[in-house]
Amino acid sequence: MRIWSHELLAHAGTEVEVCGALHALRELKQVTFLILRDGCGLIQVVVEDARLRAELAQLNAESALRVRGRATAVAQAPGGVEIHQPHVEVVSAALESPPIELNKPRLNVQLATLLEHAPVALRHPVQRAYLRLASLTMAGFRQTLTAQHFTEIQSPKLVAGATEGGANVFTVDYFERKAYLAQSPQLYKQLAVGIFERVFEVGPVFRAEPHATPRHLNQYTSLDVELGFIQDHTSVMALATETLRGMLRFIREHGQRELELLQLTLPELPATIPSIHFADAQALIFAQTGEDCRGEPDLAPAHERFLGAWAHEQHGSEFLFVVGYPMVKRPFYTHPDPARPAYSNSFDLLFRGLELVTGGQRLHRYADYVAALERQGMSLAQFADYLSAFNHGMPPHGGFAIGLERWVSQLAGLENVRAASLFPRDLQRLTP
Amino acid sequence: MRIWSHELLAHAGTEVEVCGALHALRELKQVTFLILRDGCGLIQVVVEDARLRAELAQLNAESALRVRGRATAVAQAPGGVEIHQPHVEVVSAALESPPIELNKPRLNVQLATLLEHAPVALRHPVQRAYLRLASLTMAGFRQTLTAQHFTEIQSPKLVAGATEGGANVFTVDYFERKAYLAQSPQLYKQLAVGIFERVFEVGPVFRAEPHATPRHLNQYTSLDVELGFIQDHTSVMALATETLRGMLRFIREHGQRELELLQLTLPELPATIPSIHFADAQALIFAQTGEDCRGEPDLAPAHERFLGAWAHEQHGSEFLFVVGYPMVKRPFYTHPDPARPAYSNSFDLLFRGLELVTGGQRLHRYADYVAALERQGMSLAQFADYLSAFNHGMPPHGGFAIGLERWVSQLAGLENVRAASLFPRDLQRLTP
Repeated sequence: MRIWSHELLAHAGTEVEVCGALHALRELKQVTFLILRDGCGLIQVVVEDARLRAELAQLNAESALRVRGRATAVAQAPGGVEIHQPHVEVVSAALESPPIELNKPRLNVQLATLLEHAPVALRHPVQRAYLRLASLTMAGFRQTLTAQHFTEIQSPKLVAGATEGGANVFTVDYFERKAYLAQSPQLYKQLAVGIFERVFEVGPVFRAEPHATPRHLNQYTSLDVELGFIQDHTSVMALATETLRGMLRFIREHGQRELELLQLTLPELPATIPSIHFADAQALIFAQTGEDCRGEPDLAPAHERFLGAWAHEQHGSEFLFVVGYPMVKRPFYTHPDPARPAYSNSFDLLFRGLELVTGGQRLHRYADYVAALERQGMSLAQFADYLSAFNHGMPPHGGFAIGLERWVSQLAGLENVRAASLFPRDLQRLTP
Repeated sequence: MRIWSHELLAHAGTEVEVCGALHALRELKQVTFLILRDGCGLIQVVVEDARLRAELAQLNAESALRVRGRATAVAQAPGGVEIHQPHVEVVSAALESPPIELNKPRLNVQLATLLEHAPVALRHPVQRAYLRLASLTMAGFRQTLTAQHFTEIQSPKLVAGATEGGANVFTVDYFERKAYLAQSPQLYKQLAVGIFERVFEVGPVFRAEPHATPRHLNQYTSLDVELGFIQDHTSVMALATETLRGMLRFIREHGQRELELLQLTLPELPATIPSIHFADAQALIFAQTGEDCRGEPDLAPAHERFLGAWAHEQHGSEFLFVVGYPMVKRPFYTHPDPARPAYSNSFDLLFRGLELVTGGQRLHRYADYVAALERQGMSLAQFADYLSAFNHGMPPHGGFAIGLERWVSQLAGLENVRAASLFPRDLQRLTP
């Protein structure tokens, strides 16, 4: 019965079987330390037999091995345990050395090199720990929402028109006509509110943005939520806060190995995340930096960073809600602030000075949609199927979306969101 | 504090608040029964007040309501509980009657009508119960695998070439060049075995199959699994069996409402699913039906149905593994049976006579891939990034994939897989 690296200590004193890649070989005078990397961590194997030492010395790193031996508690071994008197079976020999040295504490390569050799480079414990954080985040997201009567949906990725407006949409040849790749599940999750009242989706979204930045991917994983019978956007903000709390809790409970390896401390999420109105944020930026962005319809990245630092200083929070973005820059389904109709019942959540979550209240009355689409010069016919649902009693509703790779990237302090994606897609990159 | 339909009985004797759609109105002489449909089920509200009865009679079905009143245990009420002395708030009035009558026990409409009006039609308790089964299946799938050290991945859906061979691939305009929509995460989940050893993915896959059948969708949700250090395909079959067991267990534990509503009995999964070799299956079909399909490279749907019935009769099992499909019809990454190289270490799992799961052992040696691609006349260059990983010690590995909508469809006895998809995509249908 094969066991895993983190189970080894519990098996101390018994014969065990482990599997993994030849991560490193430290050859000393009398002994060779074979470091095996399995799906969860590293295992130290102590080899004294001369013939086996010679055999191992011939192997390329990354060869797949099966090792049987005696698990032995040794205080100075990594994790307090190692394997003695091993029998090693070469399950699949690596034919050549890896293109990148994987046996260093950190990969010392440029991002471009890492991405080019991703199938091998991502085997590095640090690189894969970033992806494990993504995996744990998805699980925590789902757990939190499932406990609150949310149903998971899978919406169409092939759609008849742009959902978020703009030209940043990929075109697909679809049986003699054109389809588009969904920029978000927005319209579908709204329709699903009529069906289930509370829904979430975890899936790919596609943005044909023709520019390369460290923050953007052309395919990313969106954690989407939508729910009905809300008061207004503040109901959505409360849910977003609880969802982030659940994600962090899940990582804390199940990601201890990854957090230790990456030497990460998870952020403290305040009971209530501080919040500032968009107009007040602009006034604050003007007052404190002299830069007058008042009247601009959006915040520049530098302004978001300023606000992030301000929230940390003033409120001790790495999270900040900015609410009430001007209607003029928000998509057609956005609900206005009834008291100040030029502003919206929408929000962005900044995490460490970067937009992480976007959400808000949506329109829920048919007539409001017709007016909004006409105002933006958009076609009613294109949205006919979508609009029809609003004739049939859609409750006040809203939701939010979290960019998974961006979340991991900010959490782990990555300089580029690409390092938090399994095989990122960008302007240049369709492979590996 | 708003509560849900299934929580109502526990609140009997107290004032409660519930939300939902006006599902039905039964107007008797002295009393009106308002049936409210929330995200989980139905709630009976007893209205005696004349003015409120008149008000409700004016409302269109599907209007969104908030109801406050006294939860009261009444033996003959549905679920043993109803709401008395209600106060009703019209949160969002429906502007017209639904295009389909939702207040009947079953929707009596053609599938085409249902699909055309899906945003409203899927609100019917039976229709949404199918989608709830899909949601529960995904959760059970993930729970089972997560407990066994699997990591969830999100792989690229935009790829540089066809992964499963064949021409059934959608073309995408990708920044001045062509990309394709992934037919499966196959190659990526294999690469991920080198990284995590055990991975799964739940996500959309795209098949440009230009024909309309009740079993096929052009986008469907694939439950994908891949793991390393296997013995051969039988290791994968054992895992597939345990995964199905976990899915069924999860539905049994969390889907009681849906199972009752749909009057479904879940299938019994034997401790070991019976298994028959492909060649023996053909011989059996010949012996018992006189139809000679021996030497054919695949099974026809009618043959699968025959085998399904045979397994039920002979083994009392609604599940049957067919193993050893001929290499000639399997994709290039398929591992041959070492003892009979014309046959493969692959399998299909038939559920009630329909292929539900496909899986097997994959090649894991670089040279085997080169030979396999050359034999199939495929380009090595196109797969260069993928192949490179096999130079670096990939363990023997394999995996399987389950079509989610097909699973729900077979489970619920649906005639068409489209009824198990939120908004299906097919030859005709890009909307809603």
